[in-house]
Amino acid sequence: MIKITFPDGSVREYNEGVTGLQIAESISSRLAQEVLACGVNGEIYDLGRPISEDAKFVLYKWEDEQGKHAFWHTSAHLLAEALQELYPGIQFGIGPAIENGFYYDVDPGEATIKESDLPTIEAKMAELVAKKEAVVRESISKTDALKKFGDRGETYKCELISELEDGHITTYTQGVFTDLCRGPHLMTTAPIKAIKLMSVAGAYWRGHEDRKMMTRIYGITFPKKKMLDEYLVMVEEAKKRDHRKIGKEMDLFMFSDTVGKGLPMWLPKGTALRLRLQEFLRRIQARYDYQEVITPPIGNKLLYITSGHYAKYGKDSFQPIHTPEEGEEYFLKPMNCPHHCMIYKNSPRSYKDLPLRLAEFGTVCRYEQSGELHGLTRVRSFTQDDAHIFCRPDQVKDEFLRVMDIISIVFRSMDFANVEAQISLRDKVNREKYIGSDENWERAEQSIIEACEEKGLTAKIEYGEAAFYGPKLDFMVKDAIGRRWQLGTIQVDYNLPERFELEYTGADNQKHRPVMIHRAPFGSMERFVAVLIEHTAGKFPLWLTPEQVAILPISEKFNDYAQEVKKFLKQYDIRAIVDDRNEKIGRKIRDNELKRIPYMLIVGEKEAENSEVSVRKQGEGDKGTMKFEEFAKILNEEVQNMINKW
Amino acid sequence: MIKITFPDGSVREYNEGVTGLQIAESISSRLAQEVLACGVNGEIYDLGRPISEDAKFVLYKWEDEQGKHAFWHTSAHLLAEALQELYPGIQFGIGPAIENGFYYDVDPGEATIKESDLPTIEAKMAELVAKKEAVVRESISKTDALKKFGDRGETYKCELISELEDGHITTYTQGVFTDLCRGPHLMTTAPIKAIKLMSVAGAYWRGHEDRKMMTRIYGITFPKKKMLDEYLVMVEEAKKRDHRKIGKEMDLFMFSDTVGKGLPMWLPKGTALRLRLQEFLRRIQARYDYQEVITPPIGNKLLYITSGHYAKYGKDSFQPIHTPEEGEEYFLKPMNCPHHCMIYKNSPRSYKDLPLRLAEFGTVCRYEQSGELHGLTRVRSFTQDDAHIFCRPDQVKDEFLRVMDIISIVFRSMDFANVEAQISLRDKVNREKYIGSDENWERAEQSIIEACEEKGLTAKIEYGEAAFYGPKLDFMVKDAIGRRWQLGTIQVDYNLPERFELEYTGADNQKHRPVMIHRAPFGSMERFVAVLIEHTAGKFPLWLTPEQVAILPISEKFNDYAQEVKKFLKQYDIRAIVDDRNEKIGRKIRDNELKRIPYMLIVGEKEAENSEVSVRKQGEGDKGTMKFEEFAKILNEEVQNMINKW
Repeated sequence: MIKITFPDGSVREYNEGVTGLQIAESISSRLAQEVLACGVNGEIYDLGRPISEDAKFVLYKWEDEQGKHAFWHTSAHLLAEALQELYPGIQFGIGPAIENGFYYDVDPGEATIKESDLPTIEAKMAELVAKKEAVVRESISKTDALKKFGDRGETYKCELISELEDGHITTYTQGVFTDLCRGPHLMTTAPIKAIKLMSVAGAYWRGHEDRKMMTRIYGITFPKKKMLDEYLVMVEEAKKRDHRKIGKEMDLFMFSDTVGKGLPMWLPKGTALRLRLQEFLRRIQARYDYQEVITPPIGNKLLYITSGHYAKYGKDSFQPIHTPEEGEEYFLKPMNCPHHCMIYKNSPRSYKDLPLRLAEFGTVCRYEQSGELHGLTRVRSFTQDDAHIFCRPDQVKDEFLRVMDIISIVFRSMDFANVEAQISLRDKVNREKYIGSDENWERAEQSIIEACEEKGLTAKIEYGEAAFYGPKLDFMVKDAIGRRWQLGTIQVDYNLPERFELEYTGADNQKHRPVMIHRAPFGSMERFVAVLIEHTAGKFPLWLTPEQVAILPISEKFNDYAQEVKKFLKQYDIRAIVDDRNEKIGRKIRDNELKRIPYMLIVGEKEAENSEVSVRKQGEGDKGTMKFEEFAKILNEEVQNMINKW
Repeated sequence: MIKITFPDGSVREYNEGVTGLQIAESISSRLAQEVLACGVNGEIYDLGRPISEDAKFVLYKWEDEQGKHAFWHTSAHLLAEALQELYPGIQFGIGPAIENGFYYDVDPGEATIKESDLPTIEAKMAELVAKKEAVVRESISKTDALKKFGDRGETYKCELISELEDGHITTYTQGVFTDLCRGPHLMTTAPIKAIKLMSVAGAYWRGHEDRKMMTRIYGITFPKKKMLDEYLVMVEEAKKRDHRKIGKEMDLFMFSDTVGKGLPMWLPKGTALRLRLQEFLRRIQARYDYQEVITPPIGNKLLYITSGHYAKYGKDSFQPIHTPEEGEEYFLKPMNCPHHCMIYKNSPRSYKDLPLRLAEFGTVCRYEQSGELHGLTRVRSFTQDDAHIFCRPDQVKDEFLRVMDIISIVFRSMDFANVEAQISLRDKVNREKYIGSDENWERAEQSIIEACEEKGLTAKIEYGEAAFYGPKLDFMVKDAIGRRWQLGTIQVDYNLPERFELEYTGADNQKHRPVMIHRAPFGSMERFVAVLIEHTAGKFPLWLTPEQVAILPISEKFNDYAQEVKKFLKQYDIRAIVDDRNEKIGRKIRDNELKRIPYMLIVGEKEAENSEVSVRKQGEGDKGTMKFEEFAKILNEEVQNMINKW
């Protein structure tokens, strides 16, 4: 008999060799139908793989990453099985599960596989699924593996096998298709009810430019047809909302290889938007007694030796900047905390001075491989809306409450309605790796849990997910088309105060170590603007949007009147542009709708005579004709109503 | 006969061998008394040195840098002459004129020279001046020079001579003292009427740590006793106003060797001040149709190869940042212009789109030797209030007028009353080195001159002072204690548009090259704040100062009332602090005066009962007791009156 320990801590005994599926069945038959894989002492197992020792055990369903992963990994094999039937002699590279679906890199030899071939392949996959083939795991020796795949002329697989350690090689077989694979997999291909091959691309074998260019086929599968339909709608909508596309259409930001990959340049409209976001946060932070500081873009190597970042990240970062004389070494700052610690240290601090809340819109640089860069969400230089709160251990809860207030104002102002939270705590057992006293950890963890309760925030608690230097609280928002984005983290830190030897004098006249809390409601200006673009499809809230009003003269005759209206609106702090191009009014309306300007004012003879404007609102259409004073009042009221909610 | 051409273009003939003094005498005897040196074809001559060819000629008086330079250079020799008498066997290093006075590096052998010895040396110098010794220039061969100085055991001078080219070595002699020197010098020591030796310091021979530590004696001299008195008063006042001292007292900024030398960190109060300055300029720039952008802190090497900066400054700059993979090279950006050129290039531009005015508070890094660093005025990282105006050649004058408006608003708002300007144009003859068409230069130079005339700004015109890439206009302000600071430059640039191949489509449908204008009214946030501190002695204008009001409760009993007043004032956007320390009211008043807070509100029993405050204004004393609403109104009116002047 072996002992199986479940996530809730309960323990059951089973015969040695019991499988995950059998355990699931022992709980409920419904569960057994839903499970896709299981975790055994931290390793992911196929449901049919025997368990031979006492184990911490967890079951994974579709809702879990690990469940989806097994589902899509098996789907990749299904794709390969179909390709093998359709393209005899085809050779296989690798076929992993990815964030959304899977791909397989293949070498079809003389044949070519085009987008137009994908339906045929999908059909073949569906045909194979209907056979409900079992997926069978086998251990194999290195010699046998080399022979087996060598006989089939699978040079790519043989290259992979030659690098593996003997005794740890496994294959998975379904029908007549066998793949070299570590797993885990579904027990059969039957649950794959909906299949969509998305695209074909080229990809170098093993990512090296000097190796063979393979054909990469991307696909995604689901256990229900409806889920695929929803996914495809979401993909279409996401394409329209791609912040890179909208950023270009709206002239918000640009990139240039001459300036450098992944280094965003904020164009005038993007800058106006960003500065308005910063002002918004500044205003809220002032209300919560933050103090803003400004620190330089670089720091001496000594600073990062002290902080520990040099030892940990030095080699993988942008490399050090040498001075032409004096032999100094500097690093582009990858975060603002070490600088803020030095500001803390600049004055003696008493318990009465705490909490000290230092905020900075601090621009940092972090190296990313160019292939990993993506619009504003993955960049090499970005500006954090950073702050570090230095407080006494007994102030942690209150500070969490205050930061949660700020984060909830941010979410509310941007119409992120659906917020989830996760509390990351220490491992329940294994506690040697954590820095800081047990008492402080206990108090901080309790503080976070209580703070969430007081705010009525349902937060998932994850044990063992805390960083070695402190527990944290993460927020996830769902955007307008249902995608989740991680936005806003509140992180306790016992490490940096220790490394920088930060102190305050307590009421007892003794020296104490302050606690440090990191937080960034936006995360970074770049990432937040990207998320905001994709969430709003570029239709930013009226108070925030760079251009609130487009004034469209019906013909050139009314350009002067349009300029007059613009000047008038400027007095009311309303941001307006005039579209005085020599174009038909219909064309102007269409073009300005694409620019996502909330209001359009159409002006012609009648309007000019009566000091009026004809108002069109984005998404709502014609709002009638009114005096321009009246329009200004309506718009400013609308903005004020939004601001009042902060 | 030779032809002498004066700065106004007039030409007179003189006998070959005529001296500068003789020419001055030929104009007026008064002038001859005032001149100190002269310029002959761009070289500075002693007044007694014969002129042997046709020459462009200019006379220098005390008011000219070149005049002062000769005066102080001769004073350095006078110091050496005195030292030679007082310390027989003393050896001499170098003794140049500097910005304020002169110094001499000497090796007194066994003797030591202390601050307390300076009066004796001054007295000896005065005694020597009374002899009215002539200063005589002689050419000498290298062999003779080595022998002459070698015989006297002058090893430092011999080292210098050994590096000189034969045929170009001269000595200057007064009385029994002879120095190796290129000149120029006064004709006699007689005009040196006031002498002050300021300090003694150590300095390595030739600046190398491994060479002998010399004794450096700093001094300054004047042609009138009154000028020295005024100078010494100014030096005392300047010490009190040293921005490094006040910056510390007011908690505005800090430096840390761990972060890095010359890298300012703005503390909360300094940041508040700086952000307010930025907001002030933003507001004015918005009025003048600037568009703000934000660019990253680094740029690819390719960017600086294109701009030409890499070839010119690459070796002396912070060295390149390598990526851990992909072999890329980046530089910390030393200026924002190349990035802005790339933004210009991002869209096709038409003549109707110009001028395009791109502004950025752009943080740049430039390497300076650590010995050269000085507070906020000489740093390694600073933020420029930068802007680049891309315009058509016919728009240059209008753009100059607009920038001059902005600069004059800045000066007015900060109470810089005394403004001087200098226009730097091409050399009148030598024109090969300038980039850009003759027609554009002509037009731009004329535009600057006309713009100054239209604004009624008296500007000194300096030919040959323009950069190779364009003419410029510089502003100098005099601060409260009479020191001059260069603040604000408007610089035309024909080079970067060429190198970046910037274009716009003209009304003629052809491609044209835009003109670029650089400007920064503050120069940098760091330098401007330093100048502002020294100008105001930290007593910033009420609208700008970080803390406007200090509320001082008479005793702890009234702390709550003080907090109530603070809260009330916050509603009126008034920045107040409460000094609730357990100190006597007299001590609190003195401490808060040191903090340069414009208003102090003293609150005790009477005030608390009647919702009143007792008002003290910095520099003006008691202003009586009033309701706190009334005080808020008075303060806000005072601020509004200042803002209305912008």
